Amino acid sequence: MTGAPLFENVTLIGIGLIGSSLSHAMRKHGLAGAITVATRRQETLDRAIELGLCTTGTLDFGAAVKDADLVIICTPMGVYKDIGTEIAPHLKAGAIVTDVGSVKFPVFQTLAPTLPDHVHLVPGHPVAGTEYSGPDAGFAALFEKRWTLLTPADRTDADAIQKVTTLWERCGAMVEVMDAAHHDQVLAITSHLPHLIAYTIVGTATDLGEDLQKEVIKFSASGFRDFTRIAASDPTMWRDIFLTNREAVLDVLGRFDEDLTELKRAIRRGDGEKLFEHFSRTRTIRRGVIDADQA
Amino acid sequence: MTGAPLFENVTLIGIGLIGSSLSHAMRKHGLAGAITVATRRQETLDRAIELGLCTTGTLDFGAAVKDADLVIICTPMGVYKDIGTEIAPHLKAGAIVTDVGSVKFPVFQTLAPTLPDHVHLVPGHPVAGTEYSGPDAGFAALFEKRWTLLTPADRTDADAIQKVTTLWERCGAMVEVMDAAHHDQVLAITSHLPHLIAYTIVGTATDLGEDLQKEVIKFSASGFRDFTRIAASDPTMWRDIFLTNREAVLDVLGRFDEDLTELKRAIRRGDGEKLFEHFSRTRTIRRGVIDADQA
Repeated sequence: MTGAPLFENVTLIGIGLIGSSLSHAMRKHGLAGAITVATRRQETLDRAIELGLCTTGTLDFGAAVKDADLVIICTPMGVYKDIGTEIAPHLKAGAIVTDVGSVKFPVFQTLAPTLPDHVHLVPGHPVAGTEYSGPDAGFAALFEKRWTLLTPADRTDADAIQKVTTLWERCGAMVEVMDAAHHDQVLAITSHLPHLIAYTIVGTATDLGEDLQKEVIKFSASGFRDFTRIAASDPTMWRDIFLTNREAVLDVLGRFDEDLTELKRAIRRGDGEKLFEHFSRTRTIRRGVIDADQA
Repeated sequence: MTGAPLFENVTLIGIGLIGSSLSHAMRKHGLAGAITVATRRQETLDRAIELGLCTTGTLDFGAAVKDADLVIICTPMGVYKDIGTEIAPHLKAGAIVTDVGSVKFPVFQTLAPTLPDHVHLVPGHPVAGTEYSGPDAGFAALFEKRWTLLTPADRTDADAIQKVTTLWERCGAMVEVMDAAHHDQVLAITSHLPHLIAYTIVGTATDLGEDLQKEVIKFSASGFRDFTRIAASDPTMWRDIFLTNREAVLDVLGRFDEDLTELKRAIRRGDGEKLFEHFSRTRTIRRGVIDADQA
C-alpha cells in the first residue's frame, strides 16, 4: 500500500545539478504526485524531458507554478528577483516556495519582497554538490547523509517548515533550521573561502609558462589535484555566491590574509618553531571533522 | 624459481610512513635480500621490529650502513647533514645512497658534501603520501601508479640511477629523472603552496570563537573537509619542506597573493564579469589533470 505523495504538484524552476538530483530523489521516494519543470532555455527543457525528469515541461514560469503546492527555485541566485516577480501573480494561496541557493540572507532582500503574503517562504540550502553541472549531472543519492540547512524567517508557518523538512529528510538529508545571516557566516568559512582559494591557486598555475604548466598537470600531487576538482565547479553559481555573500567572505578573507602573512613571514625568516607550532595546531580541527563524520 | 633480489642489503634510516611503506613494498616484491632499519629512538625501532619491518634493527647508524648496497634516508630533511656525517665513514665503495625528501636541490647542499666519492648519490622523491605518519602508517601499495622523481647530478653513475629506477618501478611507481632545482619549482606549485594554504585556512577556522568553530566542523562542506585532510599531514616534514624550499615557495606565494588580491577586489566591487571569467578559466586546468589521470 503506497500512501499519498508528500506534495501533489511540485514545480522545479531550473534543472541543473541540484534540480535534476531533486527530481531523481523525489521520484525515487514517491514524494511528488507530478513534477513540472520550468527553464529559461528550450534546449535545457528538451534535455530534461528526454531524461524523464518531469511530468510537464514549460518555458512559461507563470503557467509552471499556478497549480504548485511546492515551488523549488534551483537557479543561480542572480535571477531570484526576476523569477519572484514573474511567478508571484500566479502562486496559489498556501503554496510553499523554497530554494537551494548557497547564500541565505539575500533571499530576504531579493526573492521575499516579490512574493504575496498568502505563500510560505522557506529558504533552503542542501550542502551537497559535485563539480558537474546541468540536467545530466543529477542523481538521487546526492543529498543522502548530507546537511540541508533551512533558514525561514521567525514568523514562518511551522507546518510549511515541517513539510520542507520532511521532503529533504525523505531524500536522505539531515536537516537543521538556522538563522539566515548566521548560515552565511558559517558557510563563508566552510565553503566559500575554500572555493575562492582553490580558484585562485589553480588560476595562478594557469598563468605559468606552457612547459611548466604541463609539468604541474603531470605531477599534480594530491594537494593540487584536490584544488583543481574544487575549482572546476559551476562558474555562474560561484560568481553569484561571492556577489551575494560579499561581506562575510571579505571578513573571513581578511582573517585568512593575516594568517597567511604570518606564515609567509615565518618561512622568510626560517622560523621553524613557528611553522611547526602552526602545523601541529591544525591537526586538532581535523580530528573534530573526523569525529563529526563518525557521529 | 625466484631470481636474486635487486639489492642484497638495504638499509632504511627512519621508518615513518615512507620508510615503512618501502619495507612493505620491498618485501612484497622481493627486492631486498635483507632490510636493516636504523632509527634515532628506541621506541620507534621496537615498533618497527614488532611490525616485522626489518631483518635487523639498530640505533647505530654506522653499523646499520656498513654492509649496505643501498641506503634509503627516510627522515625529515632537517637532519640530513647529521646523518650524512654519521654514516659517511662506514659506507662501502659502490654503495648507493638515496632519500625520499620532498625538496631536492638542498640535498646537494646538506647531504652530498658529507658523502665519500666512492658512493653514488641518487636523490629521490616519491610523490605519494597520506595524512598519517609513523611506522604503523605504511602499506605496500602507497607508491603504485604514483610518480617517483629522481634528481641525480649530471655526472652520476648511470647504473646506479638505473638500479634506483628499477627499485621504484618494481614498487609500482612511474619514474622520471629531472633537474633538482626544477623539481623544487614544480613541487612548490603542485604541492607546497596547496599545503601551506590548507594549513592557513584550517588555522583561520581554529581561531574562531568556540561556538562558530563547532558549527564549522559540523557543517564542513566538501571544500573545507578536503583542506582539513591536507592540513593534517606530518608537521615536522612540512616544517622542513618550507624551510628548505623557501625561495620557490615564496616566489609562487607572491604570485598567488597578487591573484587573490585581484579576486578580492572583484568581490568588493561586485565585478561579476571578472569573477565569472576567472572561474571559467580554471576549468581548463582541471580538464588537463583529468586527461593526465586517464593517460
